[in-house]
Amino acid sequence: MASSYTPLFPQLNGLLHGGDYNPDQWLDRPDILEKDVELMKKAGINSVSLGIFAWSALEPEEGVYTFDWMDQTIDRLYQNGIYTILATPSGARPAWMDEKYPEVRRVLPTGKRNLHGGRHNHCITSPVYRQKVREMNTRLAQRYGQHPGVILWHISNEFGGACCCDLCRKKFQDWLRERYHNDIGQLNHAWWTGFWSHTFDSFDQIDPPMDQGEHSVLGMLLDWRRFTTANTADFIRNETEPLQQYAPSLPVTTNFMWLFGGLDYNEIAKEIDVISWDAYPRWHNEQPLYAVASETAFNHSLMRSFKRGQPFMLMESTPSKVNWMPYNKLKRPGLHELACLQAIASGSDTVQYFQFRMGRGSFEQFHGAVVDHTGRDDTRVFQEVSETGQTLKALSNLAGSVPSPRAAVIYDWDNRWAIEDMAGAAKQDKKYNETCIQHFRAMLRLGEDPDVISSTESFEGYDLIAAPMLYLLKPGVAQRLKDFTAAGGVVVTTWLTGYVDESTLAFLGGFPGDGLMELTGVEAAELDTLYPGQSNRIRWNGKEYPAAEFCELLTLRGAKAAGTYLEDFYAGQPAVTVHPYGKGMSVHIAARVEDDCLLDIYADIFKERHMGIKALPLGLEIHSRVDGEKRYRFYLNFSEGKVKLPSVPAKCRDMITGEEIPVGTVRELDCYGFLVTEEEL
Amino acid sequence: MASSYTPLFPQLNGLLHGGDYNPDQWLDRPDILEKDVELMKKAGINSVSLGIFAWSALEPEEGVYTFDWMDQTIDRLYQNGIYTILATPSGARPAWMDEKYPEVRRVLPTGKRNLHGGRHNHCITSPVYRQKVREMNTRLAQRYGQHPGVILWHISNEFGGACCCDLCRKKFQDWLRERYHNDIGQLNHAWWTGFWSHTFDSFDQIDPPMDQGEHSVLGMLLDWRRFTTANTADFIRNETEPLQQYAPSLPVTTNFMWLFGGLDYNEIAKEIDVISWDAYPRWHNEQPLYAVASETAFNHSLMRSFKRGQPFMLMESTPSKVNWMPYNKLKRPGLHELACLQAIASGSDTVQYFQFRMGRGSFEQFHGAVVDHTGRDDTRVFQEVSETGQTLKALSNLAGSVPSPRAAVIYDWDNRWAIEDMAGAAKQDKKYNETCIQHFRAMLRLGEDPDVISSTESFEGYDLIAAPMLYLLKPGVAQRLKDFTAAGGVVVTTWLTGYVDESTLAFLGGFPGDGLMELTGVEAAELDTLYPGQSNRIRWNGKEYPAAEFCELLTLRGAKAAGTYLEDFYAGQPAVTVHPYGKGMSVHIAARVEDDCLLDIYADIFKERHMGIKALPLGLEIHSRVDGEKRYRFYLNFSEGKVKLPSVPAKCRDMITGEEIPVGTVRELDCYGFLVTEEEL
Amino acid sequence: MASSYTPLFPQLNGLLHGGDYNPDQWLDRPDILEKDVELMKKAGINSVSLGIFAWSALEPEEGVYTFDWMDQTIDRLYQNGIYTILATPSGARPAWMDEKYPEVRRVLPTGKRNLHGGRHNHCITSPVYRQKVREMNTRLAQRYGQHPGVILWHISNEFGGACCCDLCRKKFQDWLRERYHNDIGQLNHAWWTGFWSHTFDSFDQIDPPMDQGEHSVLGMLLDWRRFTTANTADFIRNETEPLQQYAPSLPVTTNFMWLFGGLDYNEIAKEIDVISWDAYPRWHNEQPLYAVASETAFNHSLMRSFKRGQPFMLMESTPSKVNWMPYNKLKRPGLHELACLQAIASGSDTVQYFQFRMGRGSFEQFHGAVVDHTGRDDTRVFQEVSETGQTLKALSNLAGSVPSPRAAVIYDWDNRWAIEDMAGAAKQDKKYNETCIQHFRAMLRLGEDPDVISSTESFEGYDLIAAPMLYLLKPGVAQRLKDFTAAGGVVVTTWLTGYVDESTLAFLGGFPGDGLMELTGVEAAELDTLYPGQSNRIRWNGKEYPAAEFCELLTLRGAKAAGTYLEDFYAGQPAVTVHPYGKGMSVHIAARVEDDCLLDIYADIFKERHMGIKALPLGLEIHSRVDGEKRYRFYLNFSEGKVKLPSVPAKCRDMITGEEIPVGTVRELDCYGFLVTEEEL
Repeated sequence: MASSYTPLFPQLNGLLHGGDYNPDQWLDRPDILEKDVELMKKAGINSVSLGIFAWSALEPEEGVYTFDWMDQTIDRLYQNGIYTILATPSGARPAWMDEKYPEVRRVLPTGKRNLHGGRHNHCITSPVYRQKVREMNTRLAQRYGQHPGVILWHISNEFGGACCCDLCRKKFQDWLRERYHNDIGQLNHAWWTGFWSHTFDSFDQIDPPMDQGEHSVLGMLLDWRRFTTANTADFIRNETEPLQQYAPSLPVTTNFMWLFGGLDYNEIAKEIDVISWDAYPRWHNEQPLYAVASETAFNHSLMRSFKRGQPFMLMESTPSKVNWMPYNKLKRPGLHELACLQAIASGSDTVQYFQFRMGRGSFEQFHGAVVDHTGRDDTRVFQEVSETGQTLKALSNLAGSVPSPRAAVIYDWDNRWAIEDMAGAAKQDKKYNETCIQHFRAMLRLGEDPDVISSTESFEGYDLIAAPMLYLLKPGVAQRLKDFTAAGGVVVTTWLTGYVDESTLAFLGGFPGDGLMELTGVEAAELDTLYPGQSNRIRWNGKEYPAAEFCELLTLRGAKAAGTYLEDFYAGQPAVTVHPYGKGMSVHIAARVEDDCLLDIYADIFKERHMGIKALPLGLEIHSRVDGEKRYRFYLNFSEGKVKLPSVPAKCRDMITGEEIPVGTVRELDCYGFLVTEEEL
Repeated sequence: MASSYTPLFPQLNGLLHGGDYNPDQWLDRPDILEKDVELMKKAGINSVSLGIFAWSALEPEEGVYTFDWMDQTIDRLYQNGIYTILATPSGARPAWMDEKYPEVRRVLPTGKRNLHGGRHNHCITSPVYRQKVREMNTRLAQRYGQHPGVILWHISNEFGGACCCDLCRKKFQDWLRERYHNDIGQLNHAWWTGFWSHTFDSFDQIDPPMDQGEHSVLGMLLDWRRFTTANTADFIRNETEPLQQYAPSLPVTTNFMWLFGGLDYNEIAKEIDVISWDAYPRWHNEQPLYAVASETAFNHSLMRSFKRGQPFMLMESTPSKVNWMPYNKLKRPGLHELACLQAIASGSDTVQYFQFRMGRGSFEQFHGAVVDHTGRDDTRVFQEVSETGQTLKALSNLAGSVPSPRAAVIYDWDNRWAIEDMAGAAKQDKKYNETCIQHFRAMLRLGEDPDVISSTESFEGYDLIAAPMLYLLKPGVAQRLKDFTAAGGVVVTTWLTGYVDESTLAFLGGFPGDGLMELTGVEAAELDTLYPGQSNRIRWNGKEYPAAEFCELLTLRGAKAAGTYLEDFYAGQPAVTVHPYGKGMSVHIAARVEDDCLLDIYADIFKERHMGIKALPLGLEIHSRVDGEKRYRFYLNFSEGKVKLPSVPAKCRDMITGEEIPVGTVRELDCYGFLVTEEEL
Repeated sequence: MASSYTPLFPQLNGLLHGGDYNPDQWLDRPDILEKDVELMKKAGINSVSLGIFAWSALEPEEGVYTFDWMDQTIDRLYQNGIYTILATPSGARPAWMDEKYPEVRRVLPTGKRNLHGGRHNHCITSPVYRQKVREMNTRLAQRYGQHPGVILWHISNEFGGACCCDLCRKKFQDWLRERYHNDIGQLNHAWWTGFWSHTFDSFDQIDPPMDQGEHSVLGMLLDWRRFTTANTADFIRNETEPLQQYAPSLPVTTNFMWLFGGLDYNEIAKEIDVISWDAYPRWHNEQPLYAVASETAFNHSLMRSFKRGQPFMLMESTPSKVNWMPYNKLKRPGLHELACLQAIASGSDTVQYFQFRMGRGSFEQFHGAVVDHTGRDDTRVFQEVSETGQTLKALSNLAGSVPSPRAAVIYDWDNRWAIEDMAGAAKQDKKYNETCIQHFRAMLRLGEDPDVISSTESFEGYDLIAAPMLYLLKPGVAQRLKDFTAAGGVVVTTWLTGYVDESTLAFLGGFPGDGLMELTGVEAAELDTLYPGQSNRIRWNGKEYPAAEFCELLTLRGAKAAGTYLEDFYAGQPAVTVHPYGKGMSVHIAARVEDDCLLDIYADIFKERHMGIKALPLGLEIHSRVDGEKRYRFYLNFSEGKVKLPSVPAKCRDMITGEEIPVGTVRELDCYGFLVTEEEL
């Protein structure tokens, strides 16, 4: 897939190590600003993210600009070999703006306009806010766009959310007008408004889904979410235009979030040059560690897959703990470095923190940071960050390389939203995200590190596509899955596949619809939903597995039953089916099963397709990145004990120690241990 | 009780089988409309409910009417032997109306007026909305009132809820003025406003119980609920007047809901000719099946008792699953037919579904239907519906017959509301509904199928009245219970009986008040409320039973202790008492006990009063209907295994097979099996 | 501490026994008003609280006053030897006032102004409301201020809550202006607004923390709570000024609530002469009885410590049950009297009830009362109240005496609020209140009955100060703790000590800050927060104890590790430390441990400091009060069985029986039993 193997930041000669830096909170403490540079160098930090939320510091009164501190910061850092990722400050608005231009404040679904406060809560439609952002960005680009220490734009912060003001309402209506070719009849059909007398006479009657308004028109709910994505993309273009005009050579990113439900990131990704994201896993929580790790790996994989063939950035992570979760636990010694390496292993060229130095007050004062309130470098956290810095230096060679997996999991925002809104099956517990992660985890445990792609992404280069719960089929997807399989691929589907079209209208004539039944060879006759605590069992390959929550009843339409239900009125009926199709094969899993069942099914597929190795020890992850010449292999031990690695498949070099490792060597990793090897392709 | 045994719909020569039909969602698919008739006939459907929520389809612009599709539908169906229940479309408003006349949209207790959307959310006071409904109903009555295919009016849909707009506020004040004879002093006394300085100076000061308003005046809360019922009844009269004017021979119904708390159905029942309701039990949930079944039977019984001596209608039910519950499970094979027969057994002359054909989109797209998205007749659901249709045909004889039980359970909305609002005992868990169902279930397990009546309903014809938790005594009720008992009846009461009068003022001088203590022979000295997890025990008739939640401490005032507490400081004190009164007897149960304890107590009463048979096998229900000549007996097996029936008490005929069954025959029923017999009276 | 041993009410020649009395609810029943006096005398009641919430009865129309009923009530009671505590009626407003002056109604954090209704919901800033209160209080003081039957003013009722109207917003801004010397820069620094661009340009931009507004500026949240206290104090001064003017000899109280979080009671206490409070423990709930009892004792102790050396008042309690909790259980026989004696033992000179006679209707109709709806004196509750009355008479001698403990627990509202708002550790479960109670309980189980004081209260007279979770250090507190220890005291601290200053800015240079580390001899390096269900263990003095929720990682800075962690990566590190300091000692407990661990640690401290006796039997409490001549010792059995008392330490007299008890006598108490002895000092 990769067209080139260029590091994201050639200036760095390797990987980026850094984090959010807020000197604007300490301008009255020049001693601390001085100390910061010294500590950064000690910690092996070669970059900072500057200016996030700095609007008040940059424009304290309307039209009065104070860039001095920023000038000095960028210069001081650059003189010390530290590069700057420069943020636009639009993540939060200064008080004077909220006071003078109420329209910039978001209107909630309650219908109330926010008071001043918080962050990430603009009306992104507001012409005034857009103009203010454009002015600010123009000045930033003019002033810093050519500075040799500035290497990237960081647009705003963690975009998300929607506004329900009249401006947004009107823009939503205009967006609908365009989508439905100015024909309210098309909208009425797509939204199936014939029920409950919900027919609209004109686009002007349509409101956002507000608390005291409409929530039963599913097509509207989905279109609102699509509009929110489109409007955010539009806002981003307003941010980037002045940047591109005055600093055409600087790439642009914005930081994404953990499985964020508010925006279709596939669409947002198109507006930026580099993908970056903020990873805050709940390490050491009530789940086993390997489960948290593979969930994190899923997210890394999702991020890297937005721009296949190009590294991504871990823009934020905490060196110790966060402060905003229900329980904010410390990372155990060693886990920090292991987690950083997982990001690199998954395709990141950076390890970045929020934040460099803890603030003294207010909401984020106890969020983990490289330097805490002691201000010292003898803390456990500072030591671990410094060690990570050294490790990253040892891995400089692999900057620019990328993973190249043979498998992919389809993860689609439209599908996610349609499933969440679906009125049927179970109201709260349909678990789309969890199911996609389950399929990803099964493959990861088999040594494969799948991409996570949208259903409209190219399937080229993959041998296997998992499409869990692909409830909503966009136009062409069914045909493309068939083509992929006909050419030799394997497609894995599950219950709740192919029920509705892109408007959430149910397919007529049987599920999965849009012709996908030809591929699966099964029809989903009924979908049984079990109450919590109820379960069925499945027999497959001589073993029995529990099934719960959803059990689809299948009618075979060409497929062969490979597994059957063991209980209830559908005992003996097919639960897992296999359908050869062209040169490939379709596998359908009709019920919600647990990790072990999926592992066995995928192991069987891998075996048959000569793809895989046997299941790895629990907690061991293997990732790899390649460039034109080399393969970099990561062995990461996310278990609480030692694990034995599979024997090394080729002569390679331990990138940390430099030691040569002969083929067939069998190594062991300690708890939270890792090994990174470099081998010739 | 029954004055006549007339089937509800003589046109049908038997029972009605049908359901909601929404051709207005498919007007662009004449092929499907054609297919519908064919499939209806295959399924043994002889009626549809048409036009529910069809306002937009009937009046797409203000004053522009499009009745053609309805004309054609009614004609087409009638030509095929299918009758129409015609709905007024007032359950949801078209967009143009909400846009032009904002007053028709309901104001929530938050004080906010709804935006357009949803359903069942009108201001029922709004003169504009009433006028629009009147115009529409006039046209419908004029156009279809004489059509031979139309057999019933279905007014609006599932009435409920209240509006808090200024019009409603004013109407509430006027209603209070009338209730309290325009004397604010009377209101102040009834509401006991002397506490917390809550005295009102005038009726104009009184608001509905809004979120940011008054909630501590219990009399106001209760009167608001009474007003809501009265205002809804008034709205219904506005609906029915034009119907009665232009179609005087057509009866009127509106569909009730499962233990709905928003309206006093006893009052609403007076406004309509025929009772119908929508039954959606949660079959196969975490409770035992028999418990769900008897809860459903309780609801059927409640519905039939609004109009004793007349069959009711099962207006809506799902042939498979619903889509709006937290978990929407499939009905197991056979259960559907059994559930339909339970409705018939309880006095329904109809089995109707929501809906005939699944919609393609939006909120109800996955609600079960006779015909699903496949459009085929080979589905499990279609098959079961067809079988049910055949069974109903076999039972044609019993149309018009009615149950004639010897027992009744008192269930009162005023009492329910007063208990819910009562500040004392336990805040959330007073469980009035559950307790009434428990008493009903105990009798059902003894082969009796009690009516469920309001406390103001006549007690004539009963031998036993259960009055669980009759906290609020309306005027005359205490005396009527005494008269009933004096004449030989048995009355069963429980903790929390006779605490307050109809204004929710506590009776002075000891509970139960209003003279009821003469009947019970006990005084409720104190009411102990246990924390969850705490319990007491009761000994009764040599057996021990757990008691929990509420334990009333009794002082004997003539009654005899039949059971005693075994624990805590009231160990040894009476827990179950018996008091002979006139020719009858009063039984008081002071603590919340479990099903088995109630079963034993009722079995004892039944035995003593020569009423009953011994307890039936768990899950077996026996119901019967009579007309002037015959008794129709239903044996329904709501268990997961076989059950042995009691020996047949009289020579009879199996109505399905036609087979003659000699007296004394002992039959067995399979899981979900049933037997319906016909015998001479 | 005590400067004098004067009984609160010399008129009574002993303790006060009485309660809320609402004859205004029964003015149409003179027979009942007559009966009330008879029943009061039977119950040994010598005082009532009159006029709470009586505004409508006193001023039914604006400017029209009806004091007759109050005149008659006070006279009638006085003639019968019953004194009156006279309330100002400002706890609830009459309807006419809310109608005519909307500004008196509170604006909620939603931004909505309340409708009329409820209580305790004024805008306490409103000039109109303040003027109305002043007028009413002037009239009451003029009319009753010299009445010999009136012994105390009871201001309003259970003050609490804040208003968010524009008047309050403006007053908050003015308060901030004063606090920050009219310098917005000072506020910006104190609130650390540099984060997220939250810098304020002027005081006029600041809103109260409303639902749709700012919640991330922690300094603002804390200042809002401080302002609310200050504004309430200001309101109280408006109440008391006319009282003091026209009735200068009458003391003033207002009733406090159970660990109420809405006001800093230390500040409110300064505005009143006598402390009184309303105690509603959840007796017999799911906790062991002793735990409920010691939690109640903690509250009594907190109340008495607001005015050391002076008795307090138990203003409200229920003789049986309440009606507003989730579960309202009866007090078991005997528990009532024991609970009353606990209040006396803790320093109360009164036992008062809400209320004397149950109202007939509305919200409080089922709240326990001395006389219930039967109106009779043969109820269990009336009997127990009467017995309590007799017991109180027997204890007349001790009126005016006070506890004089050697230990104190620091409990600070600013600290509580700062911990609640703290963004870090665990969001919901930081458990400040519970932890303070735990430390109090440990000492109570060792026979000590500590005061509960604010951190700014004098430490004079104590040998031991427990300062659990003293997260926020006000200026001077660290130094005062050091001085106290240097002089020979013992200070016990825990995790989360000394993290922030009074503005909630984190101390730089290590925790605990402000120099407190010199005292503790440990630095809190990191704070680990465990998930629910996770735990560690601690070994101390050869025993092992579980630790959970919070485990601080310590670096020793002079202290000695007395206990160590046994698990996780900090196994072997210090968990409990001891640091000799001057003549005293500092003990630091780094993890959240259970009651038994604290008991053992305190027992060890007590032993070493020669303070204590060995642990009492579970459930036994020992309290004592002293006056210049005598010590009154209370032995209270809050267990469900018999307990053996420690041998009597000095010759004494049983105050109930009058019996002399020789030194060394060993007595036993029955379940809920008590013994009160009098001995010479």
